[in-house]
Amino acid sequence: MTRVIICAGGPVEELCDLLSYVNKETVVIGADRGSLYCIAQGITPAIMIGDFDSVTAEEWQQLQQTNAEIERYPAEKDDTDTNLALQRALALTPTEVIVTGVTGGRLDHYEAVLRKIYELQQDYPHITWQIASRRNHIRFLLPGTTKLNKSALAYVSFFAYGGDVSSVTIRGLKYETTNEPMPLTCGLFTSNEFIGEAATISFEENTIMMIMSED
Amino acid sequence: MTRVIICAGGPVEELCDLLSYVNKETVVIGADRGSLYCIAQGITPAIMIGDFDSVTAEEWQQLQQTNAEIERYPAEKDDTDTNLALQRALALTPTEVIVTGVTGGRLDHYEAVLRKIYELQQDYPHITWQIASRRNHIRFLLPGTTKLNKSALAYVSFFAYGGDVSSVTIRGLKYETTNEPMPLTCGLFTSNEFIGEAATISFEENTIMMIMSED
Repeated sequence: MTRVIICAGGPVEELCDLLSYVNKETVVIGADRGSLYCIAQGITPAIMIGDFDSVTAEEWQQLQQTNAEIERYPAEKDDTDTNLALQRALALTPTEVIVTGVTGGRLDHYEAVLRKIYELQQDYPHITWQIASRRNHIRFLLPGTTKLNKSALAYVSFFAYGGDVSSVTIRGLKYETTNEPMPLTCGLFTSNEFIGEAATISFEENTIMMIMSED
Repeated sequence: MTRVIICAGGPVEELCDLLSYVNKETVVIGADRGSLYCIAQGITPAIMIGDFDSVTAEEWQQLQQTNAEIERYPAEKDDTDTNLALQRALALTPTEVIVTGVTGGRLDHYEAVLRKIYELQQDYPHITWQIASRRNHIRFLLPGTTKLNKSALAYVSFFAYGGDVSSVTIRGLKYETTNEPMPLTCGLFTSNEFIGEAATISFEENTIMMIMSED
């Protein structure tokens, strides 16, 4: 049951509370400047990865003085620091990967990570891939019935991703649906709420983006 | 050549500089709390719309003392304040609609607006629909050749939206492509840059999401 947390270098005010996710089996990976964010939250990442072009010489020294395994890549590489961290996470055969530090700031960076997580969820369906920020948790759900557990975030919203979803059934949330169509452009499956501790969502094709959020 | 600017009530630090978009033919619409944001930036919206459940009694009085046309809806309505503002914008037969105050904070709200703008761009292709924040401008491009003008934002990125784009040709940016495939999951068309004042992008089917951004 290996959980991997990747902390990337996006705006620091968007980070989730790392400590709330960490137990003794959790592996924390710092992607570039995200490594410093982990240390600021009292966690030394097991692995630090990236080109580290966003850290100062002094900060780089600080990172080298830790026990972390450091993988430094040239700045002119073919992949982003976050993607390198995601590949590194895969090698740990995780059951769950949570990525933070990828929201806020540049929306092109966010869109790129979103698509990567979508792709990884398709390619590695036995792993739960999640993007987490202070106020939002994002997952991609695959066809079938998914059990959802209530979280500290008040609202749960669903969007078709990459194509229409023809028939969606929701049980255990405030607003239930039965075989309701969810076109790509649909914004009606939003701001739903848990009434108990668990709920389910079922559909048969394509992918649903789930966002848990709070004001 | 009517430009409409809609200011919604998202996190205020995300707002674009409204004054830089306004000339004497611009119509400004405040959506709910966004109306107060406009006034704070020295602009009284021509139209204020929403349920105004996010403003205090005192703020509501302040809004009523302006010359704005106010359309107040009941809180239990079928649409969001932003969608009501977008519908109101349509009635002004605009050539361009810019929406700000919809980024940051809750990502379900952002995703819902994104899908609505995507849908409106398909349904009203002669209007340019744009989401603007302080650091990001987002548009949906339709098949054909689109001329792009350099903006103050350093980077321009492209993503397939809602389905794969089979063949993309870019001219006039630092990284040019010729009939390059852009799958839905592709994050490689990012952080491109203008080398002159204008560029073009051409493709034949589906939709491309364009994000201009800066660090």
